[in-house]
Amino acid sequence: MEHQSRHFQDELDELKGRLLEMGGLAEERLRMAVRSLVDRETALMDRVLAGDAAINHLHIEIDDRCFKLLALHQPMAVDLRSIVAAVKINSDLERVGDLAVNIAEAVRRYLQDPPVKELIDIPKMAELAQAMLRDSLDAFVRRDVPLAQGVLAQDDELDALKTKVFRDLLTHMLRDASTIEPALHLILISRHLERIGDHATNIAEDVIFMVSARDVRHQ
Amino acid sequence: MEHQSRHFQDELDELKGRLLEMGGLAEERLRMAVRSLVDRETALMDRVLAGDAAINHLHIEIDDRCFKLLALHQPMAVDLRSIVAAVKINSDLERVGDLAVNIAEAVRRYLQDPPVKELIDIPKMAELAQAMLRDSLDAFVRRDVPLAQGVLAQDDELDALKTKVFRDLLTHMLRDASTIEPALHLILISRHLERIGDHATNIAEDVIFMVSARDVRHQ
Repeated sequence: MEHQSRHFQDELDELKGRLLEMGGLAEERLRMAVRSLVDRETALMDRVLAGDAAINHLHIEIDDRCFKLLALHQPMAVDLRSIVAAVKINSDLERVGDLAVNIAEAVRRYLQDPPVKELIDIPKMAELAQAMLRDSLDAFVRRDVPLAQGVLAQDDELDALKTKVFRDLLTHMLRDASTIEPALHLILISRHLERIGDHATNIAEDVIFMVSARDVRHQ
Repeated sequence: MEHQSRHFQDELDELKGRLLEMGGLAEERLRMAVRSLVDRETALMDRVLAGDAAINHLHIEIDDRCFKLLALHQPMAVDLRSIVAAVKINSDLERVGDLAVNIAEAVRRYLQDPPVKELIDIPKMAELAQAMLRDSLDAFVRRDVPLAQGVLAQDDELDALKTKVFRDLLTHMLRDASTIEPALHLILISRHLERIGDHATNIAEDVIFMVSARDVRHQ
């Protein structure tokens, strides 16, 4: 918006930088949680379980920046939508961080038994969820609607993998009762990954609304 | 805020009314989904699966009201925080509606097998999640911090029930392989209920921040 000051645009850029930083931290923690699962690496798992003060700090700082921008600059149109989107994206990223902890908790339980199987689809789900997070945040920063739409398409892929993981693990559980409990933990991990994809999808929908003021959420 | 117009306060009250309405619809759909499980009542389940145009419509209308209030009235302090909270609560309630659909989908799968056991803790979880939703929304409307804090305490109770459900069903699965698949669906239902509690918790945290400008989220 031309009527907004240079100062406002600098602040908005700063805010976007902070959201990217938070997204990077959340993604890193997700990667650590899933690597601790695949490599059966408890030290990595413990780092995730210890929590992340940096994410918590950024969560509060970003909210604070958004409120200041709303109160001091009284933005309109796309600028207003961007800041409200930033508040929502901030919540989504914080919950992704929480989900990384949930995954690490399930990993801790999973590692108490021998491996159920070689893990292929769960790491695939994690990579896809990470790509969706990255793309949705890039779409926010660049106001890139086609990139955001790509995230919505990737979510269908993630859902299909989740269904496959469920079927595969159910087969193991029915064949060998000793796999019941560890396979259950893997299924719960796949659900946490699905939820991370849901958060990326929420971000992508917010981006589309922010850019076009067009609501794609109930079509 | 005294400097805000009468008109603004009327609009804010209208917004709160809409959020209560949406909360009521989401709660009703949750109740239907869980009753369809307990009574093995597919007609009720189908109603949830058919989606809810009223919730989707309200979701868009509430967002729209929030943006208009921000753009036209440029509210400050607690009024600004209330409207930003309303945007976030609106998202939370929409996801509660989606979770009712997820529960109904799991009910559909669960009903394909004979009952695993008499259901006691899952209906308890549902009642608790409903109470948390109601309380968190009442706390928003009345700016009632102690009520919001009560919701945070109830969430611990919900978590304890979730753990109990997991242990009980795992025992059934280990004892009788024919219960593995249906018990899995019950565990997933309990996780959806836990997430509904998480949304009520988010709302309660937003209310505490709205009233006191004090962030209780990372303590």
